[in-house]
Amino acid sequence: MKRDAIYPGTFDPVTNGHLDIIERSSRLFGRVIVAILVNPQKETLFSLEERRRLLERSIPDGVTNVEVAVFRGLLVEFARQRSAGIIIRGIRAVSDYEYELQMALMNRRLEPEIETLFMLPAENYSYLSSRLVRELAENGGSVAGLVPDLVREALEKKYGRTV
Amino acid sequence: MKRDAIYPGTFDPVTNGHLDIIERSSRLFGRVIVAILVNPQKETLFSLEERRRLLERSIPDGVTNVEVAVFRGLLVEFARQRSAGIIIRGIRAVSDYEYELQMALMNRRLEPEIETLFMLPAENYSYLSSRLVRELAENGGSVAGLVPDLVREALEKKYGRTV
Amino acid sequence: MKRDAIYPGTFDPVTNGHLDIIERSSRLFGRVIVAILVNPQKETLFSLEERRRLLERSIPDGVTNVEVAVFRGLLVEFARQRSAGIIIRGIRAVSDYEYELQMALMNRRLEPEIETLFMLPAENYSYLSSRLVRELAENGGSVAGLVPDLVREALEKKYGRTV
Amino acid sequence: MKRDAIYPGTFDPVTNGHLDIIERSSRLFGRVIVAILVNPQKETLFSLEERRRLLERSIPDGVTNVEVAVFRGLLVEFARQRSAGIIIRGIRAVSDYEYELQMALMNRRLEPEIETLFMLPAENYSYLSSRLVRELAENGGSVAGLVPDLVREALEKKYGRTV
Amino acid sequence: MKRDAIYPGTFDPVTNGHLDIIERSSRLFGRVIVAILVNPQKETLFSLEERRRLLERSIPDGVTNVEVAVFRGLLVEFARQRSAGIIIRGIRAVSDYEYELQMALMNRRLEPEIETLFMLPAENYSYLSSRLVRELAENGGSVAGLVPDLVREALEKKYGRTV
Amino acid sequence: MKRDAIYPGTFDPVTNGHLDIIERSSRLFGRVIVAILVNPQKETLFSLEERRRLLERSIPDGVTNVEVAVFRGLLVEFARQRSAGIIIRGIRAVSDYEYELQMALMNRRLEPEIETLFMLPAENYSYLSSRLVRELAENGGSVAGLVPDLVREALEKKYGRTV
Repeated sequence: MKRDAIYPGTFDPVTNGHLDIIERSSRLFGRVIVAILVNPQKETLFSLEERRRLLERSIPDGVTNVEVAVFRGLLVEFARQRSAGIIIRGIRAVSDYEYELQMALMNRRLEPEIETLFMLPAENYSYLSSRLVRELAENGGSVAGLVPDLVREALEKKYGRTV
Repeated sequence: MKRDAIYPGTFDPVTNGHLDIIERSSRLFGRVIVAILVNPQKETLFSLEERRRLLERSIPDGVTNVEVAVFRGLLVEFARQRSAGIIIRGIRAVSDYEYELQMALMNRRLEPEIETLFMLPAENYSYLSSRLVRELAENGGSVAGLVPDLVREALEKKYGRTV
Repeated sequence: MKRDAIYPGTFDPVTNGHLDIIERSSRLFGRVIVAILVNPQKETLFSLEERRRLLERSIPDGVTNVEVAVFRGLLVEFARQRSAGIIIRGIRAVSDYEYELQMALMNRRLEPEIETLFMLPAENYSYLSSRLVRELAENGGSVAGLVPDLVREALEKKYGRTV
Repeated sequence: MKRDAIYPGTFDPVTNGHLDIIERSSRLFGRVIVAILVNPQKETLFSLEERRRLLERSIPDGVTNVEVAVFRGLLVEFARQRSAGIIIRGIRAVSDYEYELQMALMNRRLEPEIETLFMLPAENYSYLSSRLVRELAENGGSVAGLVPDLVREALEKKYGRTV
Repeated sequence: MKRDAIYPGTFDPVTNGHLDIIERSSRLFGRVIVAILVNPQKETLFSLEERRRLLERSIPDGVTNVEVAVFRGLLVEFARQRSAGIIIRGIRAVSDYEYELQMALMNRRLEPEIETLFMLPAENYSYLSSRLVRELAENGGSVAGLVPDLVREALEKKYGRTV
Repeated sequence: MKRDAIYPGTFDPVTNGHLDIIERSSRLFGRVIVAILVNPQKETLFSLEERRRLLERSIPDGVTNVEVAVFRGLLVEFARQRSAGIIIRGIRAVSDYEYELQMALMNRRLEPEIETLFMLPAENYSYLSSRLVRELAENGGSVAGLVPDLVREALEKKYGRTV
């Protein structure tokens, strides 16, 4: 049970970088819970329901130990409820890394039994983020290769044009 | 006179990390003026009056050379008025450090006689910030050990639950 | 044609750091197009028209291969339209650098024929940014030496006082 | 089998920071192989045999899924031989992190099936390294609390004085 | 003349990352002089003559505006002799970047007319360095895809085994 | 007594960046002890005696509260002997900063009563280090403006040419 893992995020929308981390994790841990953080103060492009559906439909069929969930409040509290002993975070740039360290130390203080593990996304996704995907789509740039096809279609519907 | 020091910040609310810097500073400099920056454009959780009161009541009784003040406008202008030749800044992470350097160089350009000195907070506060405290409290996480008891109580009153 | 360069930014307002990069670039490349990015979601102090006029009037008379333009949407699309094979970016601090790398990699993915080149501003402008200029002016600090005189006058008009 | 992990290093000598990572890892993975890298070009204070013995005797008795090993050559080759699908690295500072990323990406290129996971040491060990321990001991500073007692004694024997 | 560029380095040995920068540069500048720095204090795996030959034979036949040269002493002095107004540097990680900035600022002080431009290597070479190539080859790891075939053969000859 | 400060370093040789920090410090603290670290394992260009003499003769006549000293072993031990409660460090780049933090945390562990304060050198010295000065001089570059005249002469004598 301790070796179940949580992969938290906003996923607005899920990118190929996220999916890369999810697939890698699913090979290492018993169960991977992809947890969408509900933050009422943060405006998102996709609704909670849309983000959940895009995530669920993006996970390859063969991957059976991954589950999508939604949580409010403290991440460690949610991990405890789910008996997950591991939090997974992808890391990219330096500024990222600093913030991630702060969160990990804070989470350890709140719950010493839960460990944060950092993973590297594949190199060709090292510059990729949900924000960049949204900016591209908004400006009519192609997002092919950056997100799964169904996310691309969802972006095209949102913005009313090919992206 | 030159060896009086200003420790500026928003203090929304004061944390044990701030108090650690204040106590260390009070041993090194003639007088330490903890200066709350009034920034009308930035929304805060605690009002100016609340932040001032929490700060004043958090400073240990034995520490007699520390004073809490409020300032508007340019920090170096305020330092000049108070004849303080030193600005104290706590530093933590890298991103922090970069911004701090920019501010320090800008302040030196505005007033070459005033020196910025950087101090390290205690290790166990290296991840601590007012923002993290607010996020914790908002999500029902315990802030014990991160802020003085009276700040914890003030947070409990704000959020209407134990934190 | 390939050796024309784009120098994109918000220029709210143009600083001496920007002008330093523009002058250096103009000596290296066939034509330098200073491109003001129109971002409807981002509020600016100066209107698009004001920013353009301040830029145009700040470029020294002798510099004949620099042009000011306005663009919407994707930078690489604009570069393609103008047959410019180079994007110029000034770099300063670390956090800057990380974001710049992400943008450059993304732009290369969108248009592999366009190259991003990074330049160093002069040391005495290493802490300078439009945001710091606005903050200084708003708080009554002097911006002399940080921006051209006509920008200083424009700031004085905006804030109704000497800066 | 895939969930066995390698924790590689020079361990000259093992510190409490290393032991912290070892204990945390032992709770997350099936088997943890602490692997001393043999690098003939790098001079060490302790011989390979000494480092191995200090490591073996520092691992708490209750921890039964940790093994100390020695390897030459490529880390991923050693991991393959041991059927370990995970490489564990502790991370501290920024410069560290950059080098660690390079190694992890290189190792992934050499063997895509092996994943590198990064862990945070406890905060009070965030500044700790074998090099700092050696420098302290060499200059007569106390290493109490930084290394296990038996390592401290080994250092005292090496330098012929209390450390 | 001013738009000729110098690309300096040790090239011990040349990697695909270097060649990527060389090809990109050759499209942007009039002439690119790949300049091998002679540093008598630094031991290299390949002799000066070997490094020069490997570089010359690695540059694709179609690329006619690239020349390999050797220099001693100050880089800016060499650039002046060659009437090259541009120094090209590839940048990768953060630590890199800091050192590169120091060098660029120092070179500008020595010769303000010479500009340093930073370029990004292709993503899949972002972790690549001559040192990593040497370490791989020394430990029997494959360097295929990291260096041109002739460099791979030269490494195999040096180490007496397949790499 | 507590407000005396130590400014430690190798000073091989002293640069204008060091002197800038020394002068700034002398205005803030009761007494500033510039402490040359004796490290038998590290080869230096100038002998201990030369470094001391260059430092002593570089400090301006009017500055009366600065003293040059030599120490072996632990810095905090030396500070204790001299009853100095402050260690001063100049900071520049990121990599610097990380190492400095480690040292400061280690020194605090060894002696909690001694505080490390970080100062910014003047911007035009932000790229300057003793190593860069030695490299310049060795390659025949001018060091004018980077070191005091007497250091320049000492370098010319060492290398037998104008620098």
